[in-house]
Amino acid sequence: MAKKRLIIDMDHVMADITSQYIKWFKEATGIEMQRQDLLGKPEDQAFPDPQLVRKFLHTPGFFRSAPVIAGSQEVIRELNDSYDLFIVSAAMEFPQSLSEKFEWLQEHFPFIHWQQVILCGSKRPISGDFMIDDHLKNLDHFNGEKLLFSATHNSDIDNSAYTRVNNWDEVRRLLLQLHALA
Amino acid sequence: MAKKRLIIDMDHVMADITSQYIKWFKEATGIEMQRQDLLGKPEDQAFPDPQLVRKFLHTPGFFRSAPVIAGSQEVIRELNDSYDLFIVSAAMEFPQSLSEKFEWLQEHFPFIHWQQVILCGSKRPISGDFMIDDHLKNLDHFNGEKLLFSATHNSDIDNSAYTRVNNWDEVRRLLLQLHALA
Repeated sequence: MAKKRLIIDMDHVMADITSQYIKWFKEATGIEMQRQDLLGKPEDQAFPDPQLVRKFLHTPGFFRSAPVIAGSQEVIRELNDSYDLFIVSAAMEFPQSLSEKFEWLQEHFPFIHWQQVILCGSKRPISGDFMIDDHLKNLDHFNGEKLLFSATHNSDIDNSAYTRVNNWDEVRRLLLQLHALA
Repeated sequence: MAKKRLIIDMDHVMADITSQYIKWFKEATGIEMQRQDLLGKPEDQAFPDPQLVRKFLHTPGFFRSAPVIAGSQEVIRELNDSYDLFIVSAAMEFPQSLSEKFEWLQEHFPFIHWQQVILCGSKRPISGDFMIDDHLKNLDHFNGEKLLFSATHNSDIDNSAYTRVNNWDEVRRLLLQLHALA
Protein backbone atom coordinates (compact mmCIF):
# COMPACT_ATOMS: atom_id res chain seq x y z
CA MET A 1 0.00 0.00 0.00
CA ALA A 2 1.28 3.45 -0.84
CA LYS A 3 2.35 5.44 2.18
CA LYS A 4 0.11 8.34 3.15
CA ARG A 5 1.55 11.76 2.51
CA LEU A 6 2.26 13.88 5.61
CA ILE A 7 3.07 17.60 5.29
CA ILE A 8 4.89 19.13 8.28
CA ASP A 9 5.42 22.85 8.86
CA MET A 10 8.69 24.20 10.34
CA ASP A 11 8.08 27.43 12.28
CA HIS A 12 6.30 26.84 15.62
CA VAL A 13 6.04 23.11 14.80
CA MET A 14 9.68 22.00 14.47
CA ALA A 15 11.45 25.31 15.21
CA ASP A 16 10.64 27.08 18.47
CA ILE A 17 10.14 30.55 17.01
CA THR A 18 8.28 31.75 20.11
CA SER A 19 11.29 31.10 22.36
CA GLN A 20 13.49 32.76 19.75
CA TYR A 21 11.24 35.88 19.74
CA ILE A 22 11.34 36.02 23.54
CA LYS A 23 15.14 35.63 23.64
CA TRP A 24 15.87 38.20 20.92
CA PHE A 25 13.36 40.65 22.42
CA LYS A 26 15.02 40.41 25.81
CA GLU A 27 18.47 40.90 24.27
CA ALA A 28 17.26 43.98 22.37
CA THR A 29 15.14 45.65 25.08
CA GLY A 30 15.91 44.03 28.42
CA ILE A 31 12.21 43.12 28.74
CA GLU A 32 11.52 39.46 29.48
CA MET A 33 8.15 38.41 28.04
CA GLN A 34 6.44 35.22 29.22
CA ARG A 35 4.66 32.74 26.93
CA GLN A 36 1.58 33.53 29.03
CA ASP A 37 1.65 37.13 27.71
CA LEU A 38 1.51 35.93 24.11
CA LEU A 39 -1.56 33.69 24.29
CA GLY A 40 -4.20 34.27 21.63
CA LYS A 41 -2.35 37.08 19.82
CA PRO A 42 -0.37 37.24 16.56
CA GLU A 43 3.28 37.05 17.56
CA ASP A 44 4.32 40.54 16.57
CA GLN A 45 1.29 42.25 18.13
CA ALA A 46 1.80 40.41 21.40
CA PHE A 47 5.10 42.24 22.01
CA PRO A 48 5.20 45.89 23.12
CA ASP A 49 7.28 46.80 20.01
CA PRO A 50 5.73 45.08 16.95
CA GLN A 51 8.10 46.76 14.47
CA LEU A 52 11.17 45.47 16.29
CA VAL A 53 9.76 41.95 16.35
CA ARG A 54 8.95 42.02 12.66
CA LYS A 55 12.51 43.16 11.97
CA PHE A 56 13.84 39.97 13.62
CA LEU A 57 12.26 37.97 10.78
CA HIS A 58 14.49 39.77 8.27
CA THR A 59 17.64 39.57 10.39
CA PRO A 60 20.32 37.00 9.44
CA GLY A 61 20.62 34.30 12.08
CA PHE A 62 17.07 34.48 13.45
CA PHE A 63 15.84 31.28 11.77
CA ARG A 64 19.26 29.58 11.68
CA SER A 65 19.69 29.67 15.48
CA ALA A 66 16.11 28.86 16.52
CA PRO A 67 15.84 26.07 19.11
CA VAL A 68 14.20 22.76 18.24
CA ILE A 69 10.73 22.00 19.63
CA ALA A 70 10.82 19.19 22.19
CA GLY A 71 10.07 15.75 20.78
CA SER A 72 10.03 16.80 17.13
CA GLN A 73 13.30 15.08 16.22
CA GLU A 74 12.37 11.71 17.70
CA VAL A 75 8.78 11.64 16.45
CA ILE A 76 9.55 12.93 12.94
CA ARG A 77 12.28 10.30 12.64
CA GLU A 78 9.65 7.65 13.41
CA LEU A 79 7.03 9.20 11.13
CA ASN A 80 9.57 9.32 8.32
CA ASP A 81 9.53 5.51 8.15
CA SER A 82 5.76 5.19 7.96
CA TYR A 83 4.70 8.21 5.93
CA ASP A 84 5.57 9.88 2.63
CA LEU A 85 6.82 12.89 4.56
CA PHE A 86 7.49 16.44 3.35
CA ILE A 87 8.68 19.48 5.31
CA VAL A 88 6.90 22.52 3.85
CA SER A 89 7.83 25.96 5.13
CA ALA A 90 6.73 29.45 4.07
CA ALA A 91 10.08 31.17 3.54
CA MET A 92 9.85 33.37 0.44
CA GLU A 93 8.74 36.48 2.35
CA PHE A 94 12.16 36.42 4.05
CA PRO A 95 14.67 35.45 1.32
CA GLN A 96 17.59 35.29 3.78
CA SER A 97 15.72 32.49 5.53
CA LEU A 98 15.89 30.15 2.49
CA SER A 99 19.42 28.92 3.08
CA GLU A 100 19.09 29.29 6.87
CA LYS A 101 16.08 26.99 6.99
CA PHE A 102 17.75 24.41 4.78
CA GLU A 103 20.92 24.45 6.92
CA TRP A 104 18.86 24.27 10.10
CA LEU A 105 17.12 21.14 8.79
CA GLN A 106 20.45 19.58 7.80
CA GLU A 107 21.80 20.20 11.30
CA HIS A 108 18.81 19.12 13.39
CA PHE A 109 17.02 16.68 11.06
CA PRO A 110 19.84 15.08 9.04
CA PHE A 111 17.61 12.10 8.20
CA ILE A 112 15.36 14.37 6.08
CA HIS A 113 16.44 14.09 2.42
CA TRP A 114 16.60 17.26 0.30
CA GLN A 115 13.88 15.73 -1.89
CA GLN A 116 11.54 16.04 1.12
CA VAL A 117 11.95 19.80 1.58
CA ILE A 118 9.73 22.52 0.08
CA LEU A 119 10.21 26.24 0.72
CA CYS A 120 7.32 28.31 -0.56
CA GLY A 121 5.38 31.55 -0.40
CA SER A 122 1.89 30.08 -0.18
CA LYS A 123 1.03 26.45 0.65
CA ARG A 124 -2.14 26.45 -1.48
CA PRO A 125 -0.78 24.08 -4.20
CA ILE A 126 0.42 21.50 -1.64
CA SER A 127 -1.69 18.36 -1.43
CA GLY A 128 -1.50 15.35 0.87
CA ASP A 129 -3.30 13.22 3.45
CA PHE A 130 -2.25 15.02 6.66
CA MET A 131 -0.91 18.51 7.34
CA ILE A 132 0.56 19.60 10.69
CA ASP A 133 0.65 23.40 10.89
CA ASP A 134 0.11 26.17 13.43
CA HIS A 135 -1.67 28.54 11.01
CA LEU A 136 -5.27 28.25 9.82
CA LYS A 137 -4.33 30.10 6.61
CA ASN A 138 -2.22 27.07 5.66
CA LEU A 139 -4.61 24.37 6.88
CA ASP A 140 -7.74 25.91 5.34
CA HIS A 141 -6.67 25.24 1.73
CA PHE A 142 -5.45 21.73 2.43
CA ASN A 143 -7.31 18.77 0.96
CA GLY A 144 -6.42 16.23 3.69
CA GLU A 145 -6.80 16.02 7.48
CA LYS A 146 -5.82 19.24 9.24
CA LEU A 147 -3.78 18.99 12.45
CA LEU A 148 -3.48 22.31 14.29
CA PHE A 149 -0.21 22.30 16.24
CA SER A 150 -0.61 24.37 19.39
CA ALA A 151 1.26 27.67 19.50
CA THR A 152 0.75 30.71 21.70
CA HIS A 153 -0.86 32.66 18.84
CA ASN A 154 -3.52 29.98 18.12
CA SER A 155 -4.46 29.15 21.74
CA ASP A 156 -7.97 30.68 21.36
CA ILE A 157 -9.01 28.67 18.32
CA ASP A 158 -11.67 26.07 19.01
CA ASN A 159 -13.01 24.68 15.74
CA SER A 160 -13.88 21.12 14.87
CA ALA A 161 -12.48 21.54 11.34
CA TYR A 162 -9.04 21.05 12.90
CA THR A 163 -7.66 18.31 15.11
CA ARG A 164 -5.59 20.08 17.74
CA VAL A 165 -2.27 18.50 18.72
CA ASN A 166 -0.57 20.09 21.71
CA ASN A 167 2.86 18.51 21.39
CA TRP A 168 4.82 15.84 19.54
CA ASP A 169 3.70 13.08 21.92
CA GLU A 170 0.15 13.73 20.81
CA VAL A 171 1.22 13.65 17.16
CA ARG A 172 2.92 10.30 17.77
CA ARG A 173 -0.21 8.88 19.38
CA LEU A 174 -2.44 10.16 16.60
CA LEU A 175 -0.34 9.28 13.57
CA LEU A 176 1.53 6.19 14.78
CA GLN A 177 -1.01 4.56 17.06
CA LEU A 178 -4.56 5.61 16.17
CA HIS A 179 -3.87 5.53 12.43
CA ALA A 180 -2.29 2.09 12.67
CA LEU A 181 -0.58 1.74 9.31
CA ALA A 182 -2.03 -1.51 8.07
CA MET B 1 -15.26 31.41 -11.42
CA ALA B 2 -12.05 30.44 -9.66
CA LYS B 3 -8.99 30.80 -11.82
CA LYS B 4 -7.35 27.57 -12.92
CA ARG B 5 -4.03 26.82 -11.28
CA LEU B 6 -1.00 26.83 -13.59
CA ILE B 7 2.36 25.47 -12.39
CA ILE B 8 5.41 26.69 -14.36
CA ASP B 9 8.92 25.24 -14.08
CA MET B 10 12.02 27.50 -14.23
CA ASP B 11 15.02 25.62 -15.66
CA HIS B 12 14.72 25.04 -19.44
CA VAL B 13 11.26 26.67 -19.40
CA MET B 14 11.92 30.21 -18.16
CA ALA B 15 15.73 30.06 -17.73
CA ASP B 16 17.82 29.02 -20.72
CA ILE B 17 20.02 26.51 -18.91
CA THR B 18 21.11 24.87 -22.16
CA SER B 19 22.66 28.11 -23.46
CA GLN B 20 24.25 28.59 -20.05
CA TYR B 21 25.80 25.08 -20.19
CA ILE B 22 27.15 25.75 -23.70
CA LYS B 23 28.59 29.11 -22.66
CA TRP B 24 30.22 27.88 -19.45
CA PHE B 25 31.56 24.76 -21.20
CA LYS B 26 33.17 26.87 -23.91
CA GLU B 27 34.72 29.19 -21.31
CA ALA B 28 36.13 26.22 -19.38
CA THR B 29 37.35 24.05 -22.28
CA GLY B 30 37.38 26.13 -25.46
CA ILE B 31 35.00 23.61 -27.05
CA GLU B 32 31.88 25.12 -28.60
CA MET B 33 29.01 22.65 -28.47
CA GLN B 34 25.93 23.12 -30.64
CA ARG B 35 22.36 22.55 -29.47
CA GLN B 36 22.20 19.96 -32.27
CA ASP B 37 24.82 17.88 -30.39
CA LEU B 38 22.64 17.75 -27.28
CA LEU B 39 19.41 16.44 -28.76
CA GLY B 40 17.84 13.46 -27.02
CA LYS B 41 20.47 13.20 -24.25
CA PRO B 42 20.51 14.17 -20.57
CA GLU B 43 22.36 17.48 -20.40
CA ASP B 44 25.45 16.31 -18.57
CA GLN B 45 25.93 13.16 -20.65
CA ALA B 46 25.65 15.13 -23.88
CA PHE B 47 28.87 17.00 -23.11
CA PRO B 48 32.31 15.33 -23.48
CA ASP B 49 33.07 16.04 -19.78
CA PRO B 50 29.99 15.13 -17.69
CA GLN B 51 31.73 15.76 -14.36
CA LEU B 52 32.65 19.30 -15.33
CA VAL B 53 29.09 20.02 -16.44
CA ARG B 54 27.63 18.65 -13.21
CA LYS B 55 30.03 20.90 -11.28
CA PHE B 56 28.51 23.97 -12.96
CA LEU B 57 25.24 23.22 -11.13
CA HIS B 58 26.99 23.67 -7.78
CA THR B 59 28.95 26.76 -8.83
CA PRO B 60 27.79 30.18 -7.55
CA GLY B 61 26.48 32.33 -10.40
CA PHE B 62 25.41 29.53 -12.74
CA PHE B 63 21.67 29.92 -12.11
CA ARG B 64 21.83 33.64 -11.26
CA SER B 65 23.28 34.61 -14.66
CA ALA B 66 21.25 32.27 -16.89
CA PRO B 67 19.61 33.98 -19.88
CA VAL B 68 15.83 34.23 -20.15
CA ILE B 69 14.02 32.01 -22.65
CA ALA B 70 12.51 34.03 -25.50
CA GLY B 71 8.88 34.99 -25.02
CA SER B 72 8.62 33.75 -21.45
CA GLN B 73 8.43 37.21 -19.87
CA GLU B 74 5.66 38.51 -22.14
CA VAL B 75 3.55 35.34 -22.08
CA ILE B 76 3.90 34.67 -18.35
CA ARG B 77 2.91 38.27 -17.66
CA GLU B 78 -0.30 37.65 -19.68
CA LEU B 79 -0.94 34.25 -18.08
CA ASN B 80 -0.51 35.80 -14.65
CA ASP B 81 -3.74 37.77 -15.17
CA SER B 82 -5.83 34.77 -16.22
CA TYR B 83 -4.45 31.93 -14.11
CA ASP B 84 -3.69 31.18 -10.47
CA LEU B 85 -0.01 30.96 -11.36
CA PHE B 86 2.87 29.39 -9.41
CA ILE B 87 6.54 29.12 -10.33
CA VAL B 88 7.79 25.77 -9.00
CA SER B 89 11.47 24.92 -9.30
CA ALA B 90 13.51 21.99 -8.05
CA ALA B 91 16.33 23.74 -6.22
CA MET B 92 17.08 21.82 -3.01
CA GLU B 93 19.75 19.60 -4.60
CA PHE B 94 21.81 22.76 -5.13
CA PRO B 95 21.34 24.87 -1.98
CA GLN B 96 23.33 27.81 -3.40
CA SER B 97 20.67 28.07 -6.11
CA LEU B 98 17.89 28.91 -3.62
CA SER B 99 18.70 32.60 -3.28
CA GLU B 100 20.02 32.79 -6.86
CA LYS B 101 16.74 31.55 -8.31
CA PHE B 102 14.70 33.92 -6.17
CA GLU B 103 16.88 36.90 -7.18
CA TRP B 104 16.73 35.84 -10.83
CA LEU B 105 12.94 35.85 -10.68
CA GLN B 106 12.88 39.25 -9.00
CA GLU B 107 15.12 40.66 -11.76
CA HIS B 108 13.47 39.12 -14.82
CA PHE B 109 9.89 38.53 -13.61
CA PRO B 110 9.26 41.37 -11.14
CA PHE B 111 5.50 40.95 -11.55
CA ILE B 112 5.66 37.51 -9.89
CA HIS B 113 4.81 37.92 -6.19
CA TRP B 114 6.84 35.99 -3.58
CA GLN B 115 3.63 34.15 -2.66
CA GLN B 116 3.73 32.58 -6.14
CA VAL B 117 7.19 30.99 -5.77
CA ILE B 118 7.94 27.45 -4.59
CA LEU B 119 11.44 25.97 -4.38
CA CYS B 120 11.42 22.26 -3.73
CA GLY B 121 13.23 18.97 -3.94
CA SER B 122 10.46 16.89 -5.47
CA LYS B 123 7.30 18.25 -7.14
CA ARG B 124 5.18 15.25 -6.13
CA PRO B 125 3.01 17.14 -3.57
CA ILE B 126 2.21 19.98 -6.04
CA SER B 127 -1.32 19.93 -7.45
CA GLY B 128 -3.01 22.09 -10.07
CA ASP B 129 -4.81 22.19 -13.41
CA PHE B 130 -1.84 22.67 -15.76
CA MET B 131 1.89 22.05 -15.38
CA ILE B 132 4.52 23.27 -17.86
CA ASP B 133 7.77 21.35 -17.37
CA ASP B 134 10.59 19.88 -19.44
CA HIS B 135 10.98 16.72 -17.30
CA LEU B 136 8.70 13.69 -17.34
CA LYS B 137 9.68 12.92 -13.73
CA ASN B 138 7.86 16.11 -12.72
CA LEU B 139 4.88 15.77 -15.08
CA ASP B 140 4.23 12.10 -14.33
CA HIS B 141 3.06 12.70 -10.75
CA PHE B 142 0.93 15.71 -11.66
CA ASN B 143 -2.85 15.47 -11.36
CA GLY B 144 -3.69 18.05 -14.09
CA GLU B 145 -2.88 18.50 -17.79
CA LYS B 146 0.82 17.92 -18.56
CA LEU B 147 2.53 20.31 -20.97
CA LEU B 148 5.99 19.12 -22.00
CA PHE B 149 8.12 22.17 -22.82
CA SER B 150 10.62 21.28 -25.53
CA ALA B 151 14.27 21.10 -24.47
CA THR B 152 17.22 19.43 -26.16
CA HIS B 153 17.18 16.59 -23.64
CA ASN B 154 13.52 15.69 -24.26
CA SER B 155 13.51 15.96 -28.08
CA ASP B 156 13.03 12.20 -28.55
CA ILE B 157 9.94 11.87 -26.38
CA ASP B 158 6.74 11.16 -28.29
CA ASN B 159 3.95 10.22 -25.91
CA SER B 160 0.32 11.24 -25.98
CA ALA B 161 0.24 11.56 -22.16
CA TYR B 162 1.93 14.94 -22.64
CA THR B 163 0.98 17.93 -24.77
CA ARG B 164 4.23 19.17 -26.29
CA VAL B 165 4.78 22.92 -26.44
CA ASN B 166 7.82 24.02 -28.43
CA ASN B 167 8.00 27.64 -27.34
CA TRP B 168 6.12 30.37 -25.47
CA ASP B 169 4.06 31.33 -28.53
CA GLU B 170 2.60 27.86 -28.48
CA VAL B 171 1.90 28.14 -24.75
CA ARG B 172 0.12 31.42 -25.36
CA ARG B 173 -2.04 29.87 -28.11
CA LEU B 174 -2.88 26.86 -25.97
CA LEU B 175 -3.55 28.54 -22.62
CA LEU B 176 -4.87 31.94 -23.70
CA GLN B 177 -6.74 31.10 -26.90
CA LEU B 178 -7.77 27.44 -26.98
CA HIS B 179 -8.66 27.41 -23.28
CA ALA B 180 -10.72 30.60 -23.62
CA LEU B 181 -11.26 31.58 -20.01
CA ALA B 182 -15.01 31.95 -19.86
